[in-house]
Amino acid sequence: MTPITAGSGRSLTDLFVEAAKQALDDSGAHRVDSIYVGNMMSGFLQNQEHLGALMATALGREGVPTYKVEGACASGGVAVNAAVKALLSGFEEIVLVGAVEKMSGYTTPEVTAGLMMAEDRLKVASTGVTFVGLNAMIAREYMHRYRVTHESIAQFPVLCHRNALDNPKAQFRKKIKIQDVLQSPLVADPLRLLDCSGIGDGAAAIVLAPKNVAKKFTDSPVEVAASTVASDTISLYQRPNITTFEASRQAADRAYKLAGVKPKDIDVLEVHDAFSILGVMALEDLGFAQKGSGTQLLGDGECSRDGRLPTNTFGGLKARGHPVGASGLYQVAELAMQLKNEAGKCQVPGARVGLAQSVGGIGSTVAIHILRGIN
Amino acid sequence: MTPITAGSGRSLTDLFVEAAKQALDDSGAHRVDSIYVGNMMSGFLQNQEHLGALMATALGREGVPTYKVEGACASGGVAVNAAVKALLSGFEEIVLVGAVEKMSGYTTPEVTAGLMMAEDRLKVASTGVTFVGLNAMIAREYMHRYRVTHESIAQFPVLCHRNALDNPKAQFRKKIKIQDVLQSPLVADPLRLLDCSGIGDGAAAIVLAPKNVAKKFTDSPVEVAASTVASDTISLYQRPNITTFEASRQAADRAYKLAGVKPKDIDVLEVHDAFSILGVMALEDLGFAQKGSGTQLLGDGECSRDGRLPTNTFGGLKARGHPVGASGLYQVAELAMQLKNEAGKCQVPGARVGLAQSVGGIGSTVAIHILRGIN
Repeated sequence: MTPITAGSGRSLTDLFVEAAKQALDDSGAHRVDSIYVGNMMSGFLQNQEHLGALMATALGREGVPTYKVEGACASGGVAVNAAVKALLSGFEEIVLVGAVEKMSGYTTPEVTAGLMMAEDRLKVASTGVTFVGLNAMIAREYMHRYRVTHESIAQFPVLCHRNALDNPKAQFRKKIKIQDVLQSPLVADPLRLLDCSGIGDGAAAIVLAPKNVAKKFTDSPVEVAASTVASDTISLYQRPNITTFEASRQAADRAYKLAGVKPKDIDVLEVHDAFSILGVMALEDLGFAQKGSGTQLLGDGECSRDGRLPTNTFGGLKARGHPVGASGLYQVAELAMQLKNEAGKCQVPGARVGLAQSVGGIGSTVAIHILRGIN
Repeated sequence: MTPITAGSGRSLTDLFVEAAKQALDDSGAHRVDSIYVGNMMSGFLQNQEHLGALMATALGREGVPTYKVEGACASGGVAVNAAVKALLSGFEEIVLVGAVEKMSGYTTPEVTAGLMMAEDRLKVASTGVTFVGLNAMIAREYMHRYRVTHESIAQFPVLCHRNALDNPKAQFRKKIKIQDVLQSPLVADPLRLLDCSGIGDGAAAIVLAPKNVAKKFTDSPVEVAASTVASDTISLYQRPNITTFEASRQAADRAYKLAGVKPKDIDVLEVHDAFSILGVMALEDLGFAQKGSGTQLLGDGECSRDGRLPTNTFGGLKARGHPVGASGLYQVAELAMQLKNEAGKCQVPGARVGLAQSVGGIGSTVAIHILRGIN
């Protein structure tokens, strides 16, 4: 992973290559049979597509099959899923999956418009509503329906900022309190600045291989126990209940079955907290709390690194950072570090099973990965 | 397939849904396990990403995993390849693959800039060179190196226009002569207007399933005998020889091996003739002619529908049309129609084995499909 920063001044290629080379060096793999690139906004912001061939060339790996995979903010997670299927097809044995996003260096209206590419342009984005606005509607409805206060929800970013203090690659390494969240500038009522992830540049990469091949390279491979993707309607207005992401539930259900585990077996969790309310909803949609009661886990300290369900242990989207198309891969890479006992000061002792949830658009695409340490 | 037109005034969704519904109706498949969408320019031109969830919603199929796959002008072919691997993974049984591009309704500089997203933005596109310009360099070098005249190369668009006369969905249904090509307006010396494919809107779709499943739906399924992708350097200046596309050779070599066929076994061929010179080069890179002698096949009439190697039988990119990210899927769909004996007036009698070559960028990504009628 590269550190996540705003104003890096670095190119897409530069960011991607740093992460990819780290992953290749770390894995010990000399050969790469294909390259999958997750990204959401390069066409709009950098006027650059064809990231597959671009990155293969930058890595001196041209010749291999390359794929850019896009699923809005879940692009990183969806790219991992596509790569897993490529491995299972038998066509490829060693696959490099990387994801990159460069969001800084543009005006706020530009980035805001870019993010709205995840919603229906003609019917919704054209109205002028922003993604913060859509999430504010969800937060308002959630607070009303379940009688939950903003104060309770604000525990989520507080948790993330605390965890990020120990992550040298995090974008925001600054402790915050609940009052800081509630007093930060209003962005879209009720969401305030510290409810929202920021704008950042970053890239992450992993190397995937079948178990028998991976064992040649490392004594501590991490198993992909499940990799699933589900979709939902592209637009929020098309949903009967906006306080749950059906795609999250569906993708998680299938993942639990594939991995043969239940929510109680998860030792470390990474959820897509682009906005504080999404972090809380994820705890519920993934089966860790009843609907409307997610914040109780936070209040009981269960989501802390020394709790029963350590969550967003490197700082999550809020504090580690959210370079949108890359975030799903940061999550998977962080889980892998946890399960290899290489998470440094962020380590959850004895973590064996991890789950990552990556969300694209307003819950319209969700990728779930369950990883298992196989030492 | 939708008809290809400029100025359709139709949305991406509208185009995609027409093609997808045709494909689903034609296949008889009620269930769809996943949706793959090939597209190159929607982020740049329509400010719309997340085409996976967008199209799933438009089809009333939300819930299933969705993927947007991008590989520049080869996006359609690359999407088919990714879907084939998904089937082989065993995760999915019935996959809808569609591809769509809407290029009309924008200024020529806008579309030209969008197409340059397939090259390296920072190092090449920033110089102001266009894709016609890059292909003109190739044409000039090819003509010089192999002593081939423009007149010989111009046989390619003449062939395509002749074939398109019989294709009701073709964009340009107008017979042209070699002299028309040579006298058409100069675009980038030596390439003239009739050497170049046009700007158009279109979508195509197919349904893929394992053989045993496909046989439940049709008595005449078409087998994907090989599906390969290869890459090359993102930029033309990085190549030792610009008159051959190494990725085309590599992808084709692997495809012939996988399918267990040789060039002489191909009954019908679809090549990526975005510019006349590329059509000629494809005949060589795919193994049908020695380097520098591709035009001889044209002169001998071998590429005509009644020749030994019927090529671009529905009009190719030049005359059927080239909605960039969708063209690779038009090719595959056209081959399928040929092999099912459903190609109407474009039919090549007795065609059993077909090959499609889809090129992204300046030969930086190439997808090859070999299909076989299994009646």
